[in-house]
Parts: sequence; C-alpha cells; structure tokens
Amino acid sequence: MSSQVEERLKAAGIVIPAPTAPAANYIPFTRVGDLVFVSGQIPMVDGKIEGIGKVGRDLDTDAAKAIARICAINLLSQAKAATYGNLDKVVQVVKLGGFVNCVDDFTEQPEVINGASDLMVLAFESRGRHSRFAVGTNALPRGVSVEVEGVFQIEV
Amino acid sequence: MSSQVEERLKAAGIVIPAPTAPAANYIPFTRVGDLVFVSGQIPMVDGKIEGIGKVGRDLDTDAAKAIARICAINLLSQAKAATYGNLDKVVQVVKLGGFVNCVDDFTEQPEVINGASDLMVLAFESRGRHSRFAVGTNALPRGVSVEVEGVFQIEV
Amino acid sequence: MSSQVEERLKAAGIVIPAPTAPAANYIPFTRVGDLVFVSGQIPMVDGKIEGIGKVGRDLDTDAAKAIARICAINLLSQAKAATYGNLDKVVQVVKLGGFVNCVDDFTEQPEVINGASDLMVLAFESRGRHSRFAVGTNALPRGVSVEVEGVFQIEV
Repeated sequence: MSSQVEERLKAAGIVIPAPTAPAANYIPFTRVGDLVFVSGQIPMVDGKIEGIGKVGRDLDTDAAKAIARICAINLLSQAKAATYGNLDKVVQVVKLGGFVNCVDDFTEQPEVINGASDLMVLAFESRGRHSRFAVGTNALPRGVSVEVEGVFQIEV
Repeated sequence: MSSQVEERLKAAGIVIPAPTAPAANYIPFTRVGDLVFVSGQIPMVDGKIEGIGKVGRDLDTDAAKAIARICAINLLSQAKAATYGNLDKVVQVVKLGGFVNCVDDFTEQPEVINGASDLMVLAFESRGRHSRFAVGTNALPRGVSVEVEGVFQIEV
Repeated sequence: MSSQVEERLKAAGIVIPAPTAPAANYIPFTRVGDLVFVSGQIPMVDGKIEGIGKVGRDLDTDAAKAIARICAINLLSQAKAATYGNLDKVVQVVKLGGFVNCVDDFTEQPEVINGASDLMVLAFESRGRHSRFAVGTNALPRGVSVEVEGVFQIEV
C-alpha cells in the first residue's frame, strides 16, 4: 500500500508501524458511521514503551513533544487499520485529546501536544487540522509522559 | 423488562439500578442521532457514594477495579434509560473515558479501568468491546477513586 | 446579528467575543455532519488570560466557577463561528468536558464546572442541557484554573 499520506510520512522518515493488539476487553478503535474513535495511545515503539517520566522533572518540553509525536504515529497506525490500510480514506482528523504527565507547575501542555498535532498536518495536510484538548495529569499508564486519543472521519 | 443483556448481568449477580437524577444543569445523557453520550459516572450505590480515596495510598489496584465496575454499572443504568429500558437496543459500546484518582507514581490505570471494560463485555459480549482512554488524575469529585464517561451507539 | 440566544445572553450582561485564532496546527473547532467539536477553551478575555491559579490554594470554588463561565463563553464564541454567526442554529449542547486545576484534596469539581453548565442553559434554555465530565488535574496550560471542551449539535 502506498497511500499519498504514507508517502508524505515516508519522505519525513516516518514509517507507520503495525497496529498493536488490544490488551484487554477494550480495543484499539471503534467505528460508528463515518467516525472512528481511537483509544488513547501511549509511546510504544516496536512493542516497547519509550518516553517514560514526568515532564518538568525527568524530561523537558521538547523531549515530551517528540513523545507526543510517537503517540500520534500510533494513532495513525490504528487509523490505517480502520481504513483497511489506506490512510487516504481519512476525510479529516476530528479531534485529539492529549494528556501530559507533568509536575504541578508545568504549563506548556499545548507545546507538548503540538508534537501530535504537527504530525497530523504533516500526514493529512489541511485535512489534518483538528480540535483538541491538551491538559496535564499527575500520572499515566506505565509512567509514560504522554497519552493521546483521537477521533477521525473516514470515507465509508 | 428482561433484556438479554440484563439476564446476563443478573446471572453474574448484577442488577442495574434506577438512573440517578441530574444534579445540575447537566444531565445524565444526551442523544444525537444513534449516539448516546453519558456523563461521567462516579461510584454511587443506592444514592450513596462508595469508593472514596486515592489509589496507591488509600486503596490498591484490585479495590479500584471493583469501583470502576460500579461506575460502569451506573453507565449501564443511564444507557438503559436512553434505550427506554431495553439494553438489547445498544448496538455497540463506542468509547469509555476513565479517570483514576491516584498518587503521582501510580501506573496501573489500565488495570483499574478494566473493571469497567470487563463489565461492558459481560453485558454486551462482542458488542461491548470499545475504544477508551485510561488516565490518572490528582483529584475527583467528592474524593471518589474513579470516574468513567461513555459513548454508546443505539438502535433508533 | 441578533440571535435569540445572544439576546438572552445580552440581557444577562454577556457579550460573545470574536473567536480566538488557532495557535498551532490544531483549530478551534471541527464539524462532522451535524456535530461540532470545539477545542478545550481556557479563560481568555480580550486576548489576555484571566483566571490563573490552583483551585483550593490560590482561589476558591466560587472564583473558579466564574472562570469556568468564561471558558463557556469562549466555547459559545467558537460555536457561533461554526454556525456562521447564528447561535440559534445550535440544536443542542451535546457534551462538556471540564478540567479543574486543583490541589490534590479538592473535591468540588462539579460545582466549578457548573459555571459552564449554567451558562449553556442560560444561552440555550432546555437545549443547553448536556452530558459532561468534571475532573481534577494537577496542571493546565499557562497555569489556568479551568479548561472546558465541548460538543454541539447544529442545524446543517
């Protein structure tokens, strides 16, 4: 499969990984009509968790932004599965929800989640622009620094 | 009413309670098309809050998982109201959003929220599998340990 | 433009501001079918952030409730843009998601977010009643006390 989206990503050195399998009774995505709801993605790379630590203590904003980008790549991996392998079928990125594991006085959650937002626009151009929230949290699964969920509109 | 869903739950010893009334200008659920958005549910049982405390300090993962299950039962109570009493009209559980009130170094939010996810699959079988996020938070309403919101697709 | 919604708000002394521009590759709202997803709004007033501080330490519940109301006004500003200037085209407020930047033992998140919920009902009357979640967080962008996202159903 060589969708235009994946060619753009490839030109930026990004390869979409195979989607991870569900870990429990939740699944990576659900589809209802033309909406795809993708579960919160953590920074898994080749089956291993990258990007553990509290932002503002263990890592800085730029490092966390790179981790948000990994979460976004994993969102694309699930969106690819939802479109039967063809990301060109994504009509628009509807929403991202970004959680940043940070110290209590950290205030740059938007800059961190831009790592995910920028990747969406790299992949989908104007169709990649989305609504979102970006908030802090005191704790995330496995101690990861960032978790990002997403909603996509796809051709059906 | 004896929907198949409620018979499965009954066999597991679970009775769906009457839905709680709204506490303010928000309401327990809204419907738009075939989507039902259910407000974040806390562990109310018979009008009293159960399950107060910070996970990792006041209670452990297993105890919190049982509390997440109560939240899920309350989600079903609202979904039942949204389907005019017949949970068999639920087409699929689209999404759960789970917040775990925990200490800063707690990392088992997924295991806690599995208490809600597992109940959805118990109730709806394969239609109960859903996307979700599971994150930590430093504080929840009334000091409860878990809050879970949900999106359901129903027959209309 | 003098929609009935804005006349009700005006009678309460509330003027809907011009929508803020997007700050990055995310945008203030997306529309998919008749659903509008509005990005998490912070308490910006005339381009300046109001309402910084941690609830339970720097400000109390009532002060935070007033800040949630500002977030809600900003949600309406975006909803107005999404309806091409006519808020009477809002069919219903579907959902609010409220995050309260608070100390670890704060438990009145619902009372804070009522500041946003009440404004929706002031603006839209019964159509303003919505599902929601209200949770705490240890940190928000720029140090604001409240962030609220929203989903609206509009006429299309």
